[in-house]
Amino acid sequence: MRIDSVDLFYLAMPEITSAADGTQDTFLVRIRAENGLEGWGECDASPLVTLAAYVCPPSHGNIVGLRDLLTGEQVEGPEDISRIHRKVLRGALDIEQVHHALSGADIALWDLVGRARGEPIWKLLCDRDDGSRPCEPHGKIPYASVLFAETPEQTRACAEELRREGFNAAKFGWGPMGKHGAELDVALVEAAREGLGPDARLLVDAGVAWGTDAATALARAEAFAPFDVGWLEEPLDPQAVESYARLAARGAALPIAAGEGCSSYRAAIDLIENGRVDCIQIDAGRIGGITTAHRIRRVAQARQLRYVNHTFKSHLSLAAALHVFATRAEDDLLEFPARPSELCRDLVLDPLRPGPDGLVVPSPRPGLGVDLQIKTLQRFLRPVRVEVGGEVLFDLPAVGEV
Amino acid sequence: MRIDSVDLFYLAMPEITSAADGTQDTFLVRIRAENGLEGWGECDASPLVTLAAYVCPPSHGNIVGLRDLLTGEQVEGPEDISRIHRKVLRGALDIEQVHHALSGADIALWDLVGRARGEPIWKLLCDRDDGSRPCEPHGKIPYASVLFAETPEQTRACAEELRREGFNAAKFGWGPMGKHGAELDVALVEAAREGLGPDARLLVDAGVAWGTDAATALARAEAFAPFDVGWLEEPLDPQAVESYARLAARGAALPIAAGEGCSSYRAAIDLIENGRVDCIQIDAGRIGGITTAHRIRRVAQARQLRYVNHTFKSHLSLAAALHVFATRAEDDLLEFPARPSELCRDLVLDPLRPGPDGLVVPSPRPGLGVDLQIKTLQRFLRPVRVEVGGEVLFDLPAVGEV
Repeated sequence: MRIDSVDLFYLAMPEITSAADGTQDTFLVRIRAENGLEGWGECDASPLVTLAAYVCPPSHGNIVGLRDLLTGEQVEGPEDISRIHRKVLRGALDIEQVHHALSGADIALWDLVGRARGEPIWKLLCDRDDGSRPCEPHGKIPYASVLFAETPEQTRACAEELRREGFNAAKFGWGPMGKHGAELDVALVEAAREGLGPDARLLVDAGVAWGTDAATALARAEAFAPFDVGWLEEPLDPQAVESYARLAARGAALPIAAGEGCSSYRAAIDLIENGRVDCIQIDAGRIGGITTAHRIRRVAQARQLRYVNHTFKSHLSLAAALHVFATRAEDDLLEFPARPSELCRDLVLDPLRPGPDGLVVPSPRPGLGVDLQIKTLQRFLRPVRVEVGGEVLFDLPAVGEV
Repeated sequence: MRIDSVDLFYLAMPEITSAADGTQDTFLVRIRAENGLEGWGECDASPLVTLAAYVCPPSHGNIVGLRDLLTGEQVEGPEDISRIHRKVLRGALDIEQVHHALSGADIALWDLVGRARGEPIWKLLCDRDDGSRPCEPHGKIPYASVLFAETPEQTRACAEELRREGFNAAKFGWGPMGKHGAELDVALVEAAREGLGPDARLLVDAGVAWGTDAATALARAEAFAPFDVGWLEEPLDPQAVESYARLAARGAALPIAAGEGCSSYRAAIDLIENGRVDCIQIDAGRIGGITTAHRIRRVAQARQLRYVNHTFKSHLSLAAALHVFATRAEDDLLEFPARPSELCRDLVLDPLRPGPDGLVVPSPRPGLGVDLQIKTLQRFLRPVRVEVGGEVLFDLPAVGEV
């Protein structure tokens, strides 16, 4: 199949707030082949910056826009995706945004190949798995991923509501956590535990609150531990690998999770090997797509480290994330955005839902196994026009043209 | 001083080739304060992608465009630059392009503060130096940085010409190196040495030719060593830190240099600590500006590692690069682009030139110590217009408005 077109879509809610809620906008990549088949991918990235990485004029041999690098390529199977992946990382070597941008195209290529072959992506990945056979998907426990409410009382109410909705695991993060001192931090975690009850899994995401301050992160881990917290996530800056190493050396009272900030294979390896985190959290929509995420998953598996997805976009991203580690039974948790915007809630026709056993499995249908709801795309589409030197590099003014 | 405006300029030659010649286009940032003072900075980055990182609409609390983050900030001295630096890295946490983009603003802020205080930037940096006193600039040996010609004969002629121009050191890189096998690779290096004569310093830049293949890199280092090569630069992919570690473990026959691909403080530390390179090459126009480059320089100093600039843009970049390590006598080499495009050649009024002793020192004038040639800017300016959702985020159509 020859890649005929690489189409880009900037979707956003009418109002964007400063909350750490990644579902307020999104960026989609559609790859169409000459035979009429298409695949879709979603990036967790600034839509405009990512779009620019696709359409930018070349600067020299190491800065070539992704649309130019992809268009005309031949893709039949997974090995072609790997080849194209390498080509893009080489041709856009000096575009810092390349990994965020490539993520969308890479996921779209896996979707396209899966659809062409009539196979779900997890099955296409079995050849690369070095796990036990048979290679088959295992259900994951969806943990409701939500932001802390402003007060402990509201956080407790939110936790109770999640339980009523059927969640047996939840992660609270960002919001007031880490901003007003130890007392409120602990009260927030205590309230979340009370609201969930003693039997549900509770995870805490500190939202990079303590920068490079390992001592405070250690103190909070100790203070949160009595509430039976499964992990403490991103207590430190994503790049503070030396501080993560100090947490590991001193033995934090809770497992430490991080990795959503990793924008490349090497950044994740650095965090694993040198930051010595207990759980690596990869966003396939940032790190370079399913191809790179699956490489990290295999490293985690070899090191007997927990791998979990980071997902805070639509179920297009959730499906991509799940395929990466669906066949790995030991990694039993799935980040599941529980309070998405309308945009991210309604973007696919067939969202992933827990089965009667409470577990989520990937769709058995080809490719990602989810279909885009074009009405939602049209509703939230932001027209973008980019001109450089009088040439129109991108113009998507009319919803009807989608 | 309150930051009143952050102005962005995409400059390019009329024709862009696929050669690894970074001087074909550039991206400038001008920061103007309310008192009328201004500072300039240059990024070594894709102009359009970098511009998008400045003007993009916010996505959430961790994706805010740099123009919004900078405008209105107060800046008086170096500590304000550090504060603003941290603010940008936090507010644009999830924009992968942030380090390339911030580089321009950071350099412009140092230029602005230097001009306001009447001090050159190297002097403002003395407070952060942990080197020997007195803190004063030392001349650097400029090494002519050029691309390998297509044949050994042409490479020899180029080397002879550089000697005639007065260069006592030269680096050849990219072009055919690594693309056609060992024989041509060695012939290119031999020709460069012949052309330079026995007394000049010769450096070789492999231009990431051997990917993750440490064995070939080791073999080439051994084959090049008889030609008295000062270092072998970027034999491997920038992210192939594990392969760099293999080079170090096996003991390459030449010192190994790398680092221009580092887009963050952590990436450089990773390459130093884990890749164990002998020479770290930092581009202040990519890694986050003078602020970050100077942090790396101090790490290199503490580890007794050679620090050298990576510069392949105009003398705006060269001046910024030089201030970072001007006071460090041990680091005696300066990358000096010797065949820039007209754009990069003519961008400043007062380019840096070797003195009678053949050495380059920073200008004693305030700030960067170089002044922009507005005529050159106007001549090569590419108008850019970016609209999102009907709103014009950027529009620079008319040269006269600069």
